[in-house]
Amino acid sequence: MTSALITDFYELTMMQGYYLEHHDSRAVFDMFYRTNPFQGGYTIFTGIEELIDKLESFSFSAEDISYLESLDMFDRSFLEYLKTYRFHGTVYAFDEGTPAFPGEPLIRVESDLMDAQLIETLLLNTVNFQTLIATKASRMVLATKGMGKIMEFGLRRAQGENGALSASRASFIGGTKSTSNTQAGKVFGIPVSGTMAHSWIMSYATEEEAFRKFAELYPDNAILLIDTYDTLGSGIQAAIKIGLEQKAKGKKIGVRIDSGDLSYLTKEIRARLDAAGLEDAIICVSNDITEDIIKSLMSDGAPIDSWGIGTHLVTGGTQSSLNGVYKLSAKEVDGVFQPCLKISNSYEKTTNPGIKQVYRFFDKSNSPIADLITLDEEKLEEGRNYTFFHPFSTADLFVMKASRYSSFKPLLTKKMEDGRRVSERRSLKEIQETSAGLLASFDRSYKRQINPHIYKVSLSEKLRNLKTDLIVSARVKEEEAKA
Amino acid sequence: MTSALITDFYELTMMQGYYLEHHDSRAVFDMFYRTNPFQGGYTIFTGIEELIDKLESFSFSAEDISYLESLDMFDRSFLEYLKTYRFHGTVYAFDEGTPAFPGEPLIRVESDLMDAQLIETLLLNTVNFQTLIATKASRMVLATKGMGKIMEFGLRRAQGENGALSASRASFIGGTKSTSNTQAGKVFGIPVSGTMAHSWIMSYATEEEAFRKFAELYPDNAILLIDTYDTLGSGIQAAIKIGLEQKAKGKKIGVRIDSGDLSYLTKEIRARLDAAGLEDAIICVSNDITEDIIKSLMSDGAPIDSWGIGTHLVTGGTQSSLNGVYKLSAKEVDGVFQPCLKISNSYEKTTNPGIKQVYRFFDKSNSPIADLITLDEEKLEEGRNYTFFHPFSTADLFVMKASRYSSFKPLLTKKMEDGRRVSERRSLKEIQETSAGLLASFDRSYKRQINPHIYKVSLSEKLRNLKTDLIVSARVKEEEAKA
Repeated sequence: MTSALITDFYELTMMQGYYLEHHDSRAVFDMFYRTNPFQGGYTIFTGIEELIDKLESFSFSAEDISYLESLDMFDRSFLEYLKTYRFHGTVYAFDEGTPAFPGEPLIRVESDLMDAQLIETLLLNTVNFQTLIATKASRMVLATKGMGKIMEFGLRRAQGENGALSASRASFIGGTKSTSNTQAGKVFGIPVSGTMAHSWIMSYATEEEAFRKFAELYPDNAILLIDTYDTLGSGIQAAIKIGLEQKAKGKKIGVRIDSGDLSYLTKEIRARLDAAGLEDAIICVSNDITEDIIKSLMSDGAPIDSWGIGTHLVTGGTQSSLNGVYKLSAKEVDGVFQPCLKISNSYEKTTNPGIKQVYRFFDKSNSPIADLITLDEEKLEEGRNYTFFHPFSTADLFVMKASRYSSFKPLLTKKMEDGRRVSERRSLKEIQETSAGLLASFDRSYKRQINPHIYKVSLSEKLRNLKTDLIVSARVKEEEAKA
Repeated sequence: MTSALITDFYELTMMQGYYLEHHDSRAVFDMFYRTNPFQGGYTIFTGIEELIDKLESFSFSAEDISYLESLDMFDRSFLEYLKTYRFHGTVYAFDEGTPAFPGEPLIRVESDLMDAQLIETLLLNTVNFQTLIATKASRMVLATKGMGKIMEFGLRRAQGENGALSASRASFIGGTKSTSNTQAGKVFGIPVSGTMAHSWIMSYATEEEAFRKFAELYPDNAILLIDTYDTLGSGIQAAIKIGLEQKAKGKKIGVRIDSGDLSYLTKEIRARLDAAGLEDAIICVSNDITEDIIKSLMSDGAPIDSWGIGTHLVTGGTQSSLNGVYKLSAKEVDGVFQPCLKISNSYEKTTNPGIKQVYRFFDKSNSPIADLITLDEEKLEEGRNYTFFHPFSTADLFVMKASRYSSFKPLLTKKMEDGRRVSERRSLKEIQETSAGLLASFDRSYKRQINPHIYKVSLSEKLRNLKTDLIVSARVKEEEAKA
């Protein structure tokens, strides 16, 4: 069970308001974000599969109800209602692992106003963080240019146990190969990996003894940590000695360097291993590795076979949150859905009204060209031209000619109906592979680490006209009220 | 139960090594960190109370054991041993909420090598994050200079559910007044608070209607969100109307501003509320508030009564992790504890050897002057002079004259024995208050937001001599090995 107390308190006070006022018409909410993290060009949308599972079991225990009662703010009838509450909304969303862009409705929730409101915080908590981390992982994987696999080592620096679990899951979807978090191995089936700690070495009289014991125990996974005392002295010497002993038994070793100048050290260590005949010994690096450090080591040609990355992967580093929000886009009035929007002083922050869909257009080589946000009622047909309106700048538009695209595809598909999963469950490995394939199909200019080409996300003519009409009529009403 | 799989995989592979080799003598580990976060002068040590609870129930379920078995890396006898494993170490630590400084052993764990090693990741996961967030909260509270209370609104931007829970707990210890996270209210007894969402306003025909309904429902907690359409237009007008209606009933209101120029808007809103006779209406602000934004609003004299802070509080913002580590400092050899250390190429990163204690020295007004790290066997006496050696710089020292201090106090006290809590449990409120009192007793120069005065943490003569001797003999051994 997922406790329905995992919610901002105001969701409950508002919900009680809706309940007591019988103000419970249908409503539609969109989840979207406004800016790509890490100065990048995209995100990897992640968390929806876990969210579905949580929403299926989202409810109030007897204990939860007693707690709410103790606050003396809730009516008995409302508390009675909460006892049997379950989420019964319909949820459309992008598939887990889909590359996504600012302004796109990534999740669309339709339910009673009360119900759709209550899940806001859980939804954002799940999707904001996992999307951030999957995106970070994906960027780190791109930075390695396919040289060396990334092991996620973040448990000790993540936000509590579940923060760490979510981070391991999201990192894996973003492309990491394994996790150090044993629980994530059990829960998600992610391969677990690890080497040894300095304390292992220090607990023996010599590095040589410590390495030998380890290689005897784990002949197929002997990655020896060589920087406890003197990396280029006792460390590499002992590793080579053990490496040759293992080689005689038909086994390979690896070394891990966790401090110092990783560019210089990896080259020097590679040369010494090769000179000793240990060309197949792998080199693993760790120690506060960031995306920038990966890029710098790659451009230096550092011979690295695997990366152990913790802190900056599982927290997002200097950008530790995604600014995803959840906004009302339509509400039922007298049995009919009325589009609505939150007006902001800047047009850029005014939300897109109505029940919407997102279409991704592909060129003849199946590479995405641009996305179009439409009203859900619009039915697109192949072979037609479409006008793509800039989401903020009224004068900016382009025509997507029928000759330019070969196909399009709606990205919001139904995941839940009446609070129950209706989409197929996929393995994490499958999600990881599909996601990597999708990202690979985008032109590389969109994936540049900084200053990427901006992937176009436009509004359809109908949506743009609706938005303009609603803003204008709201502004006129305001001006009239002033007069 | 806390699953013992919440551990880096290498802890388990090393543990099996120790188990199979009967390499299980007693060992002592220290947890410490090297740099204060946020360019600040201190941290608020947090998480130890939760860690104690977790360690008391740290064990492997039948499911956990099956998972490990499925990996085909663990011996049957070791898995049998894990079935009845429980933590049985002795733990000394600083009290929860104590101001702490770089290099100080904040937690000291003594147990069998296997046992002390296994808990490393859980310990760091719990303490690193909570210390980071309590410190951030404490800094934000200082930045408000006592003007306005901080409500923690971070659930939607935190790392998963537990990440959010830990963050709410740590923020509260650091000095926030309430949380939006209802579950944190239930679990920790933290006061819950919240206002309303834009969707509440949008679900009604007018702001006035939305505000009135809310004020009727929550006459004692009516904080009205006035920026849905036009803050200085329809928003404040409707709020004043409702405010006057409530005033006639003997009730107060408040307004919340979640966008725009908070400095300009709060002043303008204050003036209008006052002019309408609503001098007691409070003003609450939110919207991506950082420590710098608090400082800037405070120096502008913005009239703010309460702050709703999420993202930058519960993630740490641009610094999203504390670099706390856990290092072996002594191991039993032939029944006697031998001090040990991890040598680094930089003396600064070489660990402090031996079983240690930390003494805080106070002046006559009970304000802390400096901390001294000693060997635990040293027994300090009042009325004596002590030489304080700089932790890295060999030539740097000062004498703490008996005339300068009035008292000292050991900071590491016993929290667990044989894996069971021996320290008293305190309420979160009590921890918060004690912590604030301790922080207040430090000279303000140590609490400057940036470029603070560095609080002195020194080594005793015995500890400094031991460290030097160990390094020198290790280096000599290395040089001899080379010749």
